[in-house]
Amino acid sequence: MKLFERLKADAAPQWVNYTQHEFVRQLGEGSLPLECFKHYLVQDYLFLIQFARAYALGVYKSPSVSDMRQSLEGVKAILDIELDLHIELCGKWGMSREEIENAPEDTPTMAYTRFVLDAGMSGDLLDLQAALAPCIIGYAEIGSRLTGQGADREGNAYRRWIQEYAGEGYQDLARGFASWFDETAEQVLTESRYPRVLSLFEKASRLESDFWQMGLNAQR
Amino acid sequence: MKLFERLKADAAPQWVNYTQHEFVRQLGEGSLPLECFKHYLVQDYLFLIQFARAYALGVYKSPSVSDMRQSLEGVKAILDIELDLHIELCGKWGMSREEIENAPEDTPTMAYTRFVLDAGMSGDLLDLQAALAPCIIGYAEIGSRLTGQGADREGNAYRRWIQEYAGEGYQDLARGFASWFDETAEQVLTESRYPRVLSLFEKASRLESDFWQMGLNAQR
Amino acid sequence: MKLFERLKADAAPQWVNYTQHEFVRQLGEGSLPLECFKHYLVQDYLFLIQFARAYALGVYKSPSVSDMRQSLEGVKAILDIELDLHIELCGKWGMSREEIENAPEDTPTMAYTRFVLDAGMSGDLLDLQAALAPCIIGYAEIGSRLTGQGADREGNAYRRWIQEYAGEGYQDLARGFASWFDETAEQVLTESRYPRVLSLFEKASRLESDFWQMGLNAQR
Amino acid sequence: MKLFERLKADAAPQWVNYTQHEFVRQLGEGSLPLECFKHYLVQDYLFLIQFARAYALGVYKSPSVSDMRQSLEGVKAILDIELDLHIELCGKWGMSREEIENAPEDTPTMAYTRFVLDAGMSGDLLDLQAALAPCIIGYAEIGSRLTGQGADREGNAYRRWIQEYAGEGYQDLARGFASWFDETAEQVLTESRYPRVLSLFEKASRLESDFWQMGLNAQR
Repeated sequence: MKLFERLKADAAPQWVNYTQHEFVRQLGEGSLPLECFKHYLVQDYLFLIQFARAYALGVYKSPSVSDMRQSLEGVKAILDIELDLHIELCGKWGMSREEIENAPEDTPTMAYTRFVLDAGMSGDLLDLQAALAPCIIGYAEIGSRLTGQGADREGNAYRRWIQEYAGEGYQDLARGFASWFDETAEQVLTESRYPRVLSLFEKASRLESDFWQMGLNAQR
Repeated sequence: MKLFERLKADAAPQWVNYTQHEFVRQLGEGSLPLECFKHYLVQDYLFLIQFARAYALGVYKSPSVSDMRQSLEGVKAILDIELDLHIELCGKWGMSREEIENAPEDTPTMAYTRFVLDAGMSGDLLDLQAALAPCIIGYAEIGSRLTGQGADREGNAYRRWIQEYAGEGYQDLARGFASWFDETAEQVLTESRYPRVLSLFEKASRLESDFWQMGLNAQR
Repeated sequence: MKLFERLKADAAPQWVNYTQHEFVRQLGEGSLPLECFKHYLVQDYLFLIQFARAYALGVYKSPSVSDMRQSLEGVKAILDIELDLHIELCGKWGMSREEIENAPEDTPTMAYTRFVLDAGMSGDLLDLQAALAPCIIGYAEIGSRLTGQGADREGNAYRRWIQEYAGEGYQDLARGFASWFDETAEQVLTESRYPRVLSLFEKASRLESDFWQMGLNAQR
Repeated sequence: MKLFERLKADAAPQWVNYTQHEFVRQLGEGSLPLECFKHYLVQDYLFLIQFARAYALGVYKSPSVSDMRQSLEGVKAILDIELDLHIELCGKWGMSREEIENAPEDTPTMAYTRFVLDAGMSGDLLDLQAALAPCIIGYAEIGSRLTGQGADREGNAYRRWIQEYAGEGYQDLARGFASWFDETAEQVLTESRYPRVLSLFEKASRLESDFWQMGLNAQR
């Protein structure tokens, strides 16, 4: 996680705000109001659709077949697995597939996803990865930390969510992504370019915090 | 303004929220706190940079040389004229070019601009136009209405801004855009597709309201 | 195959040139020089890499999750299956993976693939499909016709290739694509737009003929 | 012209084939059949339309306002000036605007232009510049060399064309482009990436040779 570690250190304020957001704290404690979580989950479904488009853009942008296959894994993970998991999880709280698919996108959802897509389209594969990294690796870090704090205990209504991101499957995916990010950087990253990559990473981290805050704000 | 009039009628709630927003009302009255306007103006500068990219995308997406030239007018208007006008206007209130160019983009600025860019990139020229229309034509409508209400009177601190958008130059540009939008629609718009075009128009109008609100929120 | 049938009829000269090209005739007879086929096969491998990018672009361009999944099937078919089949087939004639992957792209390969990618990027999903259709559906038609003529007889060195495209798997894929193409057209095709769609289809068909000709020209 | 000089040296075979192509030699001598030149000129008109799209893509891809303005110059040069010059020049040989605009694109025209557009869209600004460089700087070099050989003498039917590219206006534009290319490279070019940039430059140079050859082949 070399490039990632450097970015995380340089974007420490944004990173801490995002990964230790009040939404995350309450989710770990189990005190997060259900309406906040449900609002988050529906928006996260809409978010994932755009994220699948961003991974597909990665296939289009890849300079080698091996990079194409790496990006394809991300598209498959979302379209073949994650979307249905969200529908299932939402179903437990009485929300139907229609309700979820027809929910309007909130501004923070649009801001984050369209920012990633545009960063990727206007730049190269490294720019796309820098904009994707906070979400992919940050969720792994959050899952891990919450589990370390025992947040995945029985009785926590959000246990399943925590286990998902703390689980080996997701942790592997995040590690794989971090290595791939490093390999790309070894090919194309210069020091002159680093500030621009950092800026993408900072913005994406900030947009993650806004996304959590949107969840908190759903509380009546 | 045929397609535009239809969209405006069908997106009436979003359109009214946007064009008659509290920010606009206070701007017309001259009661808008200066800090709100300044915040808006700096963000609008950053917005215009992205909008120039969206017009350039229009050149790339144009199916004919005549469409390319129409899009090019938009790029030129921003890069050759409007950006400098913003710098000049900001200068009157003591803001330097550096201050403006280095200001961080607010979330509503990112949400709106990246939404337009992605709508245009993923769709065709009509999709791009539908996402651009609320800004281009809405500002003309606002300028006109405020002037009709006498808001461009001497003594209104925002007189220059109002005159800019009420002026013949801008009104012509907006009319030209509306005709071009109609011509494209005559070529490619079907009734089955209309709901998607309307949705782009509604979202862009909503993102305009969020942009005004960002200005209002800058009040301490 | 409604839209496809109309396009095929209107682009009859280009369609006949492509699907009944001398290369195809000799391939059916088994008289095609091996060096022609090998040259074709290596270029087709390079072609498929770009075609996978085009399908990925389809995921990015899709207006619905269902369209995204349809496009994803195309990416998977190439990256998970077809590329390896080509390597295997090439291996039979003594070509190594390295040789294939490092072969320079011929001009007809570049012309065809980049044309499809640009048609898709600058237009919408229907434009992309119109540029993809001649390849996807044409190969099914060729496979079928050759088999009907008994070209897949034992002893024809190109039997395996013919069986691949005449087989149920590929025929289904082509039928599925044609239906999807029709569904998109029902949503977004107007008569005013039809000539542009036809032009994409004609150009792609012409580029297919150039691709066969490149194979024939490889004969010493 | 630092990066450009390095690329030119490393792609010497492709560069020499392109800039000293038989078409260029005959054009300098004045012995080039008129039908070859006319065919070239019409295709070059269609080429320029796509090149304007590529420059517009440069505006979209630019990481700074200053880069955006540099790209914009290219769009303006083509849409505001060069296209009309081509129409005028063609007019001298009895070709009408309609004839030119409705001419079908030849395969080498499609191969070259779509390659540049796709290289730019899938990569970053440097990739786009590397694909544009052979055309922009190569024409300046050809114009200069031919003039040095006295090819712009009265009586050479192609004198006007030679003067155009040997003239200060075009020479300045090419020098400006080369500096801009260098500035971008200073920001983002690594040694690991260099082979990919070289490959884009080589391919574009090869596609330039194919373009001249298309002109020569027009001879009956």
